[in-house]
Amino acid sequence: MKFEPISNCFISCDEPFDTAENIIMGIPYDGTCSFRPGSRFAPDAIRSSSCGIETYSPILDADLEEMKICDIGDLELSFGNKKSILGVIEAAALEVFNSGKRLISLGGEHLVTLPLFHALSVSLKTKDICVVHLDAHADLRDDYMGERLSHATVIRRISEITGTSNIFQYGIRSGTKEEFDLIKKEGTMVTPFSDLPKVIGNRPVYLTIDLDVLDPSGFPGTGTPEPGGWQFIEIYNILSVIKELNVKAADVVELSPHYDHSGVSTVTASKVVRELLLSL
Amino acid sequence: MKFEPISNCFISCDEPFDTAENIIMGIPYDGTCSFRPGSRFAPDAIRSSSCGIETYSPILDADLEEMKICDIGDLELSFGNKKSILGVIEAAALEVFNSGKRLISLGGEHLVTLPLFHALSVSLKTKDICVVHLDAHADLRDDYMGERLSHATVIRRISEITGTSNIFQYGIRSGTKEEFDLIKKEGTMVTPFSDLPKVIGNRPVYLTIDLDVLDPSGFPGTGTPEPGGWQFIEIYNILSVIKELNVKAADVVELSPHYDHSGVSTVTASKVVRELLLSL
Amino acid sequence: MKFEPISNCFISCDEPFDTAENIIMGIPYDGTCSFRPGSRFAPDAIRSSSCGIETYSPILDADLEEMKICDIGDLELSFGNKKSILGVIEAAALEVFNSGKRLISLGGEHLVTLPLFHALSVSLKTKDICVVHLDAHADLRDDYMGERLSHATVIRRISEITGTSNIFQYGIRSGTKEEFDLIKKEGTMVTPFSDLPKVIGNRPVYLTIDLDVLDPSGFPGTGTPEPGGWQFIEIYNILSVIKELNVKAADVVELSPHYDHSGVSTVTASKVVRELLLSL
Amino acid sequence: MKFEPISNCFISCDEPFDTAENIIMGIPYDGTCSFRPGSRFAPDAIRSSSCGIETYSPILDADLEEMKICDIGDLELSFGNKKSILGVIEAAALEVFNSGKRLISLGGEHLVTLPLFHALSVSLKTKDICVVHLDAHADLRDDYMGERLSHATVIRRISEITGTSNIFQYGIRSGTKEEFDLIKKEGTMVTPFSDLPKVIGNRPVYLTIDLDVLDPSGFPGTGTPEPGGWQFIEIYNILSVIKELNVKAADVVELSPHYDHSGVSTVTASKVVRELLLSL
Amino acid sequence: MKFEPISNCFISCDEPFDTAENIIMGIPYDGTCSFRPGSRFAPDAIRSSSCGIETYSPILDADLEEMKICDIGDLELSFGNKKSILGVIEAAALEVFNSGKRLISLGGEHLVTLPLFHALSVSLKTKDICVVHLDAHADLRDDYMGERLSHATVIRRISEITGTSNIFQYGIRSGTKEEFDLIKKEGTMVTPFSDLPKVIGNRPVYLTIDLDVLDPSGFPGTGTPEPGGWQFIEIYNILSVIKELNVKAADVVELSPHYDHSGVSTVTASKVVRELLLSL
Amino acid sequence: MKFEPISNCFISCDEPFDTAENIIMGIPYDGTCSFRPGSRFAPDAIRSSSCGIETYSPILDADLEEMKICDIGDLELSFGNKKSILGVIEAAALEVFNSGKRLISLGGEHLVTLPLFHALSVSLKTKDICVVHLDAHADLRDDYMGERLSHATVIRRISEITGTSNIFQYGIRSGTKEEFDLIKKEGTMVTPFSDLPKVIGNRPVYLTIDLDVLDPSGFPGTGTPEPGGWQFIEIYNILSVIKELNVKAADVVELSPHYDHSGVSTVTASKVVRELLLSL
Repeated sequence: MKFEPISNCFISCDEPFDTAENIIMGIPYDGTCSFRPGSRFAPDAIRSSSCGIETYSPILDADLEEMKICDIGDLELSFGNKKSILGVIEAAALEVFNSGKRLISLGGEHLVTLPLFHALSVSLKTKDICVVHLDAHADLRDDYMGERLSHATVIRRISEITGTSNIFQYGIRSGTKEEFDLIKKEGTMVTPFSDLPKVIGNRPVYLTIDLDVLDPSGFPGTGTPEPGGWQFIEIYNILSVIKELNVKAADVVELSPHYDHSGVSTVTASKVVRELLLSL
Repeated sequence: MKFEPISNCFISCDEPFDTAENIIMGIPYDGTCSFRPGSRFAPDAIRSSSCGIETYSPILDADLEEMKICDIGDLELSFGNKKSILGVIEAAALEVFNSGKRLISLGGEHLVTLPLFHALSVSLKTKDICVVHLDAHADLRDDYMGERLSHATVIRRISEITGTSNIFQYGIRSGTKEEFDLIKKEGTMVTPFSDLPKVIGNRPVYLTIDLDVLDPSGFPGTGTPEPGGWQFIEIYNILSVIKELNVKAADVVELSPHYDHSGVSTVTASKVVRELLLSL
Repeated sequence: MKFEPISNCFISCDEPFDTAENIIMGIPYDGTCSFRPGSRFAPDAIRSSSCGIETYSPILDADLEEMKICDIGDLELSFGNKKSILGVIEAAALEVFNSGKRLISLGGEHLVTLPLFHALSVSLKTKDICVVHLDAHADLRDDYMGERLSHATVIRRISEITGTSNIFQYGIRSGTKEEFDLIKKEGTMVTPFSDLPKVIGNRPVYLTIDLDVLDPSGFPGTGTPEPGGWQFIEIYNILSVIKELNVKAADVVELSPHYDHSGVSTVTASKVVRELLLSL
Repeated sequence: MKFEPISNCFISCDEPFDTAENIIMGIPYDGTCSFRPGSRFAPDAIRSSSCGIETYSPILDADLEEMKICDIGDLELSFGNKKSILGVIEAAALEVFNSGKRLISLGGEHLVTLPLFHALSVSLKTKDICVVHLDAHADLRDDYMGERLSHATVIRRISEITGTSNIFQYGIRSGTKEEFDLIKKEGTMVTPFSDLPKVIGNRPVYLTIDLDVLDPSGFPGTGTPEPGGWQFIEIYNILSVIKELNVKAADVVELSPHYDHSGVSTVTASKVVRELLLSL
Repeated sequence: MKFEPISNCFISCDEPFDTAENIIMGIPYDGTCSFRPGSRFAPDAIRSSSCGIETYSPILDADLEEMKICDIGDLELSFGNKKSILGVIEAAALEVFNSGKRLISLGGEHLVTLPLFHALSVSLKTKDICVVHLDAHADLRDDYMGERLSHATVIRRISEITGTSNIFQYGIRSGTKEEFDLIKKEGTMVTPFSDLPKVIGNRPVYLTIDLDVLDPSGFPGTGTPEPGGWQFIEIYNILSVIKELNVKAADVVELSPHYDHSGVSTVTASKVVRELLLSL
Repeated sequence: MKFEPISNCFISCDEPFDTAENIIMGIPYDGTCSFRPGSRFAPDAIRSSSCGIETYSPILDADLEEMKICDIGDLELSFGNKKSILGVIEAAALEVFNSGKRLISLGGEHLVTLPLFHALSVSLKTKDICVVHLDAHADLRDDYMGERLSHATVIRRISEITGTSNIFQYGIRSGTKEEFDLIKKEGTMVTPFSDLPKVIGNRPVYLTIDLDVLDPSGFPGTGTPEPGGWQFIEIYNILSVIKELNVKAADVVELSPHYDHSGVSTVTASKVVRELLLSL
């Protein structure tokens, strides 16, 4: 694969691939979505909407124009054959990781985190990768209606690789009784944000942000909205400690833009991406 | 009338009528709505949307699958003749109450609370029923444009039966000067949630939740949205004390699903219904 | 499997399975949809909307209440594993066909036609089944982005079983050059509606209606709208000859209701289903 | 009552009441609507939208600015008590008719035609008034779910006053078998437009246009959309003969503007009103 | 110009101009909007929506019916020629100010504040006017894509007249690095609300409320939504001190109603206007 | 200016500028729009939507992949200063024309046609350019609310350069009496499509397609929808003769995508652009 910045890139992320330190990649896949599909449209919507916000963040006092970011556009994916799609995602991510760059992926649904994590693990030659997981849903099912590879099982699958002690979950407010029993037993929700640097230290980190962690009042455009979530500013709880972590990869998933005609969900996703980039 | 669970019931509420302890009944009536109609579509929308949430509540640590609930579907109502409709509602509710079961009604508009309350009063052979009322609007007008039976007068009518000392209102933030004068004079808004068990004791309780008590940011799909309301989690203020009350009947009214294309209002209503059921 | 009529059935289609002559089955699958997903929500939407139309058709002078139709509800399908889903569909359809009843399926996307056709072929023990195909798109690709089982290849796959001479296409106005070359070479679009009885005779017929054959002006709620289509009344061109054909199975696919907030697309789908049922 | 032109009148219809020859009156009532309510919002929406069209009609070569029309605004109506509302409508209309002016009413739902017709009959002191009825639905039921006064029975009620021989229906494509039997028996749909002047002669005419006579492709914003209707230009079939009739009153009903976010239904209603006014 | 109350005025604001103390004027201009236009539709939408709220405010314990307010309707403006439009606005405002009345303007976009401020300055014959500015955006750019007169530069232009020491900004959370450098250097965001009476004293005040200061969760209907804003009730922080200030003019701008189909943004704008009026 | 194909180009239009024969340029300007703005979003929407249609046209039996087209993206324009914007447009167009290529512009509003026409006239050094104009509106006003440069005056301005005898209008169905008097006097609507080749011969042609020439049933997403327009297929009336004309430039204007949430208007615009390109 040859990567280069696209012309309709995320605002100001047009650094050539070779000199870029951070790579944005869109993954328009939503094939296992069980309720309301449409996150396939998210990467393009996020890019368009990024023109409506500034490159500068007053809270972080930082500016995208001072970073070296290359938005390489979307992977081309067909629908229906899950396994081959996951393979394509993993291969592309591996190439980015092997070039020594950080990858920020724009989903798509949450299952895409699995091949991204795999690729990172392969590239780093270690399974000992910490996963910081922001979400409304536990995603810890063993299977979902018989399927083991699903947006609802993705963290379970990852935990089987890296171990539940490496899973740090925030914002979870929906799941089956079994999932919450697991959460309690394994303690995946007990570490406060502020303790993360101390607990994780310099180990590599994969950060995955399922945008439905936000309250549906401010983020209605998602597949399975779950009332009782975070206000936007609570995102800064995690962003404020990211700089101290060794984040190797991150993703922002589950925007389903067609479900919010006001466009606010998409603007919000764009701002999350900007603040995430500025926090790395 | 013969009651049985419908196939498109609220998630997992398919217990046969005879063995059920709680009955869900839809009342698709919005005939006195003065601003934006459409709550007639709410019961079906709530049922469909209930498939997008879990049966388990992590906050309440309880599961619908362990309860005995029968969703008997919607009453069949024509439009235009208010009196005959109120009669149909009252008759159906009376039958449920006389079978010794608890009734959870899904409106429809707020006027439906009146015949439901009537039926409960008849069945219990007492007027001394406490009304816990969550709403953005006082609903205490004596008449609304000349009509004495209206969504805007419903609590006034009920208070004339049970007495204002039995009315406990929460979340009210809109009304005429006359209504707020009455609220102050009669003290209907002074009892804190946490005092309810002590104040009410074992007397029968009718709980009515007008969903517009929620802030329109998270619940735009309602007839008369009123800014400045509750966040979703504030619902738990009342749910946390319900178990200690002798709730005989409850209703959830005023979702107008067509006004929120994101579907979030309907999901929120579904979650309110689930948490309510799990709190009884 | 045990089949019985659901309570929220298509209007008046509540005949018990055993005595019914026609079976309605919903197939909420849209896993290979390449553009705008959401046809998974169609069967339920069609049923709800059927309450807004009459059971009587003045054009056909016939009434659903005089037919014996059982709406058995939706198949339960998970997402992501295409092959296993197609198997579930085929098995359910086979059971219906083996009971000697006619099956009218509500999609879902167009790929569902393949297992339905398979089941009919198995049940009838013949590959010589005529396919009457209404659609905006040719669906004759050999593969779609590498996938051979896709909504865009479904008629090609079926033609490989029954032969192109058994394919009768109407309304096609979009496709690749290769698809239209095939159409011209094989003559799949040359038979006028009115000649169908003569050409087909008594051979078994599978009728598949992709609703995007309709012009997007009247039917915007679909995955890949294609301007230049039929007005609603042109549907009667085919319905007027159906009675003379030996239709064993039919489907109505590709309504994506969330893309049309006016609800007109769903009402239109409901009316197509009613007129189709009354024409059989 | 004192009538005067409102400031947000239908475009250029600001003639003082006393010198006006045509009166526009809004009737925001939709209390018996059985499917999707909201026609109460139509009169205001039509007025706002009228600013987006011209006062001049190229097809009719006529200009609103050369007519004397007074838009007196909306009647103030409460909801719930059908009988008293019908009384208010009839009283207001009677006052307009008694002043010798023509009344063009903007619904609201179709039931409003009944008190308007009553008022005209009282004012003219005759029951021999011809009714020209454009609609998708027959509106000839004897009762609708037990109610005899309903949008679905309105023409039946009127026919009981004036006789079915005075009813001339166009565009009807939905109804029960009983309604169509009545249509056939009484011949209410047999007179071609062009014969109306000859058949009716100089007798007084009430013209009622239910906008759902239009195809939902161009007019989705209505309570009970019915596919297979007229294109906009077919409205001119009736408008071209109106000038030869003695039209005493007309109404335009059943726009439900909130169901069409594109605003096209409302613009279309505005244009129908303009062309109707210019044809009188 | 001759001013008089319009019939579709903001709820109960129909005092004749001569006896009114407060004047409402709509300014439907959005010509320099850079992202999503449509605030031109705001004044009419706010008026319509005001019928869905009460005239009484329980928080302020005050009622519009006890105030003397005249809503004179909208200025008539063409689009494209910015300079002549600003002249029309300034002239109309000057006439209102010269009659000694307070002016509450409904935008339209934020640039309209400039001619309104000019007019106030001319009428008061002083440049020493304090500007209280609620907004998500700093609006302090020197130019926007080369244009010096823009919604993004309006406070900068005003500060050049009155001096930055007279600018008091609240809620700002978006801007370029240069704008925030200016904010820090000039201290425009340091004065707490509660200190305003003390700091400003009796000097004349212009209050400008860009509604996007509210969080897009409750106010999605605006041109450039910016996550992380105020909840509705935080508006009372400023309203609670307004009575102690010498407010000569105020405006409420940047509602773009078509971007929020739920209508909540418009209702919210109406309630802001009501509470503002009741606080003056 | 340096032109090159953008990565999110109109489907398959990625030929390098130098070797391209046809150039696509987006002009996101809607500054004089008088009713509903938003055509600024059209070029990007058309490009995104082009992925939902094929490159091949069965009606024209032609394929975009066999043409040499370069989509150079959008001009960067600020809002508010009309004159400078028109200058930017004219300069860019002139550069394209001077390179000997054909320019297909995507509006934006209709006023953009004026600088495009100017540029063509300058490049060709002649005023004798025929204008083929498809539109619902005459656009022949001398001024619009005092403005002489407006979307409503654009053809008048152009006719003042090239003469009314060079103006050929189709689909016009709205305008003032003065505009239609001009149309009749100057005969701008009398030439049948099929006579165009004979009448125009080899003279240079500018083709401007205001998409609101289409009926709003199929194209609701436009600023001033006008019922009674063309069905999509009537576009082929003009396309079928284009090949015989010497078309030097064309534009497609007035899609306002946010007003049609179904996306059908945008898909239709994309198909118009494709068929136009394939007809040149």
